[in-house]
Amino acid sequence: MKKKINIAVVGLGNIGSYFCNEIVKKKKDILLKTGKNLNLLYVSAKNKNKKRPFKFKNEQWIHQPLNITNNPAVDIVVELIGGSDGLAKKVTISALKNKKHVITANKALIAKHGNYLSYLAEKNKVNFEYEASVAAGIPIIRSIKEGLISNKISKLIGILNGTSNYILSKMEQTGKNFNKILKEAKKLGYAESNPKSDLNGADVGSKIRILSSLCFHTLISKNNILIDGIYNIENKDIINAKKLGYRIKLLGITEIINKNIFERVHPCLVDINSYIGNINGIFNASIINSSPVGQTIMQGEGAGPGPTSSALMSDLYSILRGNIKYPFIIPYKLRKKISQFNHSNYSYSCYLRFEVKDKPGVLSGITRNLGENKISIEKLMQIPDKKKHTASINIITHKTIEKRIIKCLHKLKKNKHIIKSPTFIRVGEINDN
Amino acid sequence: MKKKINIAVVGLGNIGSYFCNEIVKKKKDILLKTGKNLNLLYVSAKNKNKKRPFKFKNEQWIHQPLNITNNPAVDIVVELIGGSDGLAKKVTISALKNKKHVITANKALIAKHGNYLSYLAEKNKVNFEYEASVAAGIPIIRSIKEGLISNKISKLIGILNGTSNYILSKMEQTGKNFNKILKEAKKLGYAESNPKSDLNGADVGSKIRILSSLCFHTLISKNNILIDGIYNIENKDIINAKKLGYRIKLLGITEIINKNIFERVHPCLVDINSYIGNINGIFNASIINSSPVGQTIMQGEGAGPGPTSSALMSDLYSILRGNIKYPFIIPYKLRKKISQFNHSNYSYSCYLRFEVKDKPGVLSGITRNLGENKISIEKLMQIPDKKKHTASINIITHKTIEKRIIKCLHKLKKNKHIIKSPTFIRVGEINDN
Repeated sequence: MKKKINIAVVGLGNIGSYFCNEIVKKKKDILLKTGKNLNLLYVSAKNKNKKRPFKFKNEQWIHQPLNITNNPAVDIVVELIGGSDGLAKKVTISALKNKKHVITANKALIAKHGNYLSYLAEKNKVNFEYEASVAAGIPIIRSIKEGLISNKISKLIGILNGTSNYILSKMEQTGKNFNKILKEAKKLGYAESNPKSDLNGADVGSKIRILSSLCFHTLISKNNILIDGIYNIENKDIINAKKLGYRIKLLGITEIINKNIFERVHPCLVDINSYIGNINGIFNASIINSSPVGQTIMQGEGAGPGPTSSALMSDLYSILRGNIKYPFIIPYKLRKKISQFNHSNYSYSCYLRFEVKDKPGVLSGITRNLGENKISIEKLMQIPDKKKHTASINIITHKTIEKRIIKCLHKLKKNKHIIKSPTFIRVGEINDN
Repeated sequence: MKKKINIAVVGLGNIGSYFCNEIVKKKKDILLKTGKNLNLLYVSAKNKNKKRPFKFKNEQWIHQPLNITNNPAVDIVVELIGGSDGLAKKVTISALKNKKHVITANKALIAKHGNYLSYLAEKNKVNFEYEASVAAGIPIIRSIKEGLISNKISKLIGILNGTSNYILSKMEQTGKNFNKILKEAKKLGYAESNPKSDLNGADVGSKIRILSSLCFHTLISKNNILIDGIYNIENKDIINAKKLGYRIKLLGITEIINKNIFERVHPCLVDINSYIGNINGIFNASIINSSPVGQTIMQGEGAGPGPTSSALMSDLYSILRGNIKYPFIIPYKLRKKISQFNHSNYSYSCYLRFEVKDKPGVLSGITRNLGENKISIEKLMQIPDKKKHTASINIITHKTIEKRIIKCLHKLKKNKHIIKSPTFIRVGEINDN
């Protein structure tokens, strides 16, 4: 590799601007640690004149990013546009085809097109790096690819969305409802103006697909996996969970069960005294079980320009120190497809909340229905609302397979005394310490 | 780098045997992930015929390890002899001088001779890797060298000795005394037959010196740093700490204060609800504060053949994937010496326990002495032992500089009513979540 390396950054939002400032500010540090002189040759973004915390020179600006990716002077392209398709995809593909190393923070892009992109990177003998796409401030991808490289990973559990975790934590701490906290989170910059993919689980879904592929040396799955977000969590659920010794967390989980992969994202009641139950606010965390190393826990800030830029920089230094690596640990052609575990066969406890009319026979109607579906009850709390003549029936079931729960809830839809669609949250047995 | 790589392992104790089995068993995995055919060419140990879980062929055995290190066929030498000097040092130096990559788990060797060894490695353009020397199962060295590479680290706090942490945890859980738990720990393999360096803080001291050098880009310090172990911790202290909302942990800490380095190892009262207060048993943990990434927490098993071998393997795969790296992130000649912060000027709260004769005026004698040294008391508990006509006076002081405490305790030595040398444990303000 030559001594002077030219980098171009496409996308100058909060992250892009912060990152550009970092590479300019840390020019000396980069030279010291990698032996390379890094030059920020070009930048590009949608709007040249937008006010942003990074100032570029006129000659650094390129209007059309595809004129960057096919420019022979450019060695490394950093894609910070976002989105699984459109320009982000075009820029990345063009850069790889033109033998540029690519760094991206774009989890949606990788989750959808990562197989093809890694194939392109290997074919063109360049690096495709994406540490910032998962749990920004935690060097989780590098740890799986390098620190734990020789271990056989069996399971990964993560809190991988700072926005969701912030909202759930604040709902508990303040007693305010979902919408109020979401509004505050937007003001504080902890939620994007359109936080849909953060809150409906899709963001964690992308991250889990990426991590699965790294953990199990498989192609990124296209499976229609279980993805559920936090939209339905009410303060009532958080209070009930606490009374029962739990805290609600949005978890991303991937594991191998009977040679099938079981990837899922859903809110989960976790032991309030567990490690994962105490990751609050914008923190991300992951627990990896593997052999022979045992359990490895990592925690750090999961979002924001500083932590994300730290991850992008680690990719950059890695490229500058040289040698081409497989983007997903092993060669593309050796990564396998793996069948999906059918989650309706999975067995766990669950938390159910029914809002009902406070009339005789309502409770017995529900418990009979549970019984008919072979679902047995571990704990039950009935909390009456005397003013409204309603009651909230909260149940923790013993372990049961998911399809029984679904069947039971389906049947209970016809029960006229149940005044709202029941809440159903899985209970996790997370042995984390 | 050629495709077939020959490795030799010197030292075939528990770790060495486990590691040899791993590299034989994982030959295919190594080829898949690194493209290299790894061949275990030679092994050596003190006693050829000792019963061990790894079986080598006669032609693999070399009696004199220095005949390995100067053998042109050998590419990588793994030093698992142990000890800061003697054969371990000779083997490592000879291997580096003969342009072999070296992997070691030997923290004592690195803490003492790491500066010279890293100089040799750079001079001879080979890798010198030592992930297994600190917190075995946690990829902490790799995370500092790669994942957090662009961050400015300000402080690292760690639980870095599994034996000590196991003993402290078990003393709390069972109420049994230090010696009993130590005996049990030896039986279970959680303490070595000679656990001195684990229990007197020296082991953590070596690890802190290594981590400091990585965190702050300095030469490994030869400073006479504050090192205190857990020999003086009694069940009484553990019980008192709990009553006061604390748990006792042996911590290794390094940070920069006013451009000086402050490395220390000592038992510490930490908040019982903090993250670090809940790392129990043989687990290791570290908290790194750095900018811009914020706080990064890592946790894993800190000892044993499996976790140690995982770390050795990460070094091995890293070497096999090629490219020479600076052992301590930046070139040897650019690493700086850094002055030591004078710990007697450091200010903190502390826990003091005095065993006294239960006579009038004893308490006031102690508190007067504290007052004269400008040490003010935050909490005080006096627990009488009526049978023995003694009392235990337990004090948590407000923040005060260490030299005042030392002066005060020195003066109190003359107090005839104090029947035992006072116990003094620092109280940590660890903002870990």
